[in-house]
Amino acid sequence: MIRVGIVGYGNIGRGVEKAVMAAEDMELQAVFSRRDPKSFKLALSTAPVLSVSEAPNMTDEIDVMILCGGSATDLAEQGPYFASLFNTVCSFDTHAKIPEYLASVDGATNNTTAIISTGWDPGLFSLMRTLFQAVLPNGATYTFWGKGVSQGHSDAIRRIAGVEHAIQYTVPLEDAINQVRAGSMPELTARQKHLRECYVVAAPDADKAIIEETIKTMPDYFADYDTEVHFIEMDEMRANHSKMPHGGMVLRSGVTGDTQQGMEFSLNLDSNPEFTGSVLTAYARAAFRMAGEKLFGAKTVFDVPLSYISPIERATLIKELL
Amino acid sequence: MIRVGIVGYGNIGRGVEKAVMAAEDMELQAVFSRRDPKSFKLALSTAPVLSVSEAPNMTDEIDVMILCGGSATDLAEQGPYFASLFNTVCSFDTHAKIPEYLASVDGATNNTTAIISTGWDPGLFSLMRTLFQAVLPNGATYTFWGKGVSQGHSDAIRRIAGVEHAIQYTVPLEDAINQVRAGSMPELTARQKHLRECYVVAAPDADKAIIEETIKTMPDYFADYDTEVHFIEMDEMRANHSKMPHGGMVLRSGVTGDTQQGMEFSLNLDSNPEFTGSVLTAYARAAFRMAGEKLFGAKTVFDVPLSYISPIERATLIKELL
Repeated sequence: MIRVGIVGYGNIGRGVEKAVMAAEDMELQAVFSRRDPKSFKLALSTAPVLSVSEAPNMTDEIDVMILCGGSATDLAEQGPYFASLFNTVCSFDTHAKIPEYLASVDGATNNTTAIISTGWDPGLFSLMRTLFQAVLPNGATYTFWGKGVSQGHSDAIRRIAGVEHAIQYTVPLEDAINQVRAGSMPELTARQKHLRECYVVAAPDADKAIIEETIKTMPDYFADYDTEVHFIEMDEMRANHSKMPHGGMVLRSGVTGDTQQGMEFSLNLDSNPEFTGSVLTAYARAAFRMAGEKLFGAKTVFDVPLSYISPIERATLIKELL
Repeated sequence: MIRVGIVGYGNIGRGVEKAVMAAEDMELQAVFSRRDPKSFKLALSTAPVLSVSEAPNMTDEIDVMILCGGSATDLAEQGPYFASLFNTVCSFDTHAKIPEYLASVDGATNNTTAIISTGWDPGLFSLMRTLFQAVLPNGATYTFWGKGVSQGHSDAIRRIAGVEHAIQYTVPLEDAINQVRAGSMPELTARQKHLRECYVVAAPDADKAIIEETIKTMPDYFADYDTEVHFIEMDEMRANHSKMPHGGMVLRSGVTGDTQQGMEFSLNLDSNPEFTGSVLTAYARAAFRMAGEKLFGAKTVFDVPLSYISPIERATLIKELL
């Protein structure tokens, strides 16, 4: 059995808990939190909840630590710290800062293996972008996201004065996907690829016209997109917009000689954090196995053979899935 | 530059030639054939055509040999033979015999690396089946093929008395795909998953009713499927059925907890042999690199990190594709 620890018990941490409980070759050893360990209970497991300060005493009891903090604040510090003590996996997803983060985690590893930036994007989508480019070097790759909730865009709306609650869905545009599938290798602007659909609960005295204008003109987040704003009541928000669906697709359109070839990978997820938790858990298996073979240091999904993430032994994989 | 040899110059060999010529880090060193080397010319390259008997003299000039023979006859012998002399890749695709073939090639390697059963099924589809199962252990995987030409089924029709030419398309059934996507995890029979569409040129004096009946009742090939038989003239066959499109998809429908999650990979290929050749060429890069790191022996796509198949260096992959 692979003995797993979880650091951070938010949405992704709860997703990892479910995935570890469902894995026949893993057991959840402890959950570590910066909150008071007595202030909450685990959803499924009877494993202890401990303070993160107790983690250094548990190096003999935990084979791999799954880091479930956020990229913006937690992981920059927790990634290197835990990699110095444990084999780790994380879903660090600030694309622009990945090289710097990788170097920092790699420098911290100490006869440990740390697989960074797993999840689905970065993670599985990255795997597909690399595979597709290698197989069809003469072509173009497109990534579409959604339909799904973007936490960052939802938060940006919530910071506007007069907004009581908001959810933003990123919606991929069918017309753009069809152009890619047709093999025309179009150059697509942000506006041509995705629509931004916002559901907003305004305060009773708020000016909705001003809120709508503030959203639609917000630089980086909305100004470069067609944006729809729908004002709804809190009851409707709770009833219809409390789930965290997501998904998306990676497409490559290319040619071999002058022959058209197309490759696609897509995800249709009713729960983004639970799926991310499942990917983290599969790569935790790989971190444990790579450490067992002394393949130490910081790794990415590009460095991990898929046999390492599977619970099925290699001979059976070859017989049944090859 | 990776110096590549090709063994066998049929449809896949020609596809590999195109892919190697398009790869900036590879050069085609020679093509080996059992035919008289003077009897044909290469489509694109000025590399020499040599007899397979000359291959053993070329071990210093070729880094990796791409085996383009058929599974049924050529590879069982050529796979181990060439793996004893060179790093190799092949597309051995007789699923039931892969474990035996793997053992035979593995036993023959001699400080060489042989990646077997690359291509798209087995190959990329196998990668997806393994990835999908590892990430969503609680679910079901489905593979659909087509719409595309099945060489084996076309050949089976051509062997019927009175048939002058025939092409068989395997067609995936939309209704089955939709059931899988809806998450009902259906149990599907062969008949429910694929339709078999046959285009047949009959000899002038042949009895078409007997040919049709012979096709539709042929065990293994057609009896378990709904089969359509269309009789056409040779002109129409040449005009409309001379290409080799193919494709298909791997789908997994599963749950995390009680939440529905879906994963899909699909290929839409205008030329099956050229795409297979492109996959072989990408894995030839991996065989060369793994041999350079003394990772000798017979490998499968499950054993190869994707960074090894990419022409892009790891730091750039991490910066741009992760």
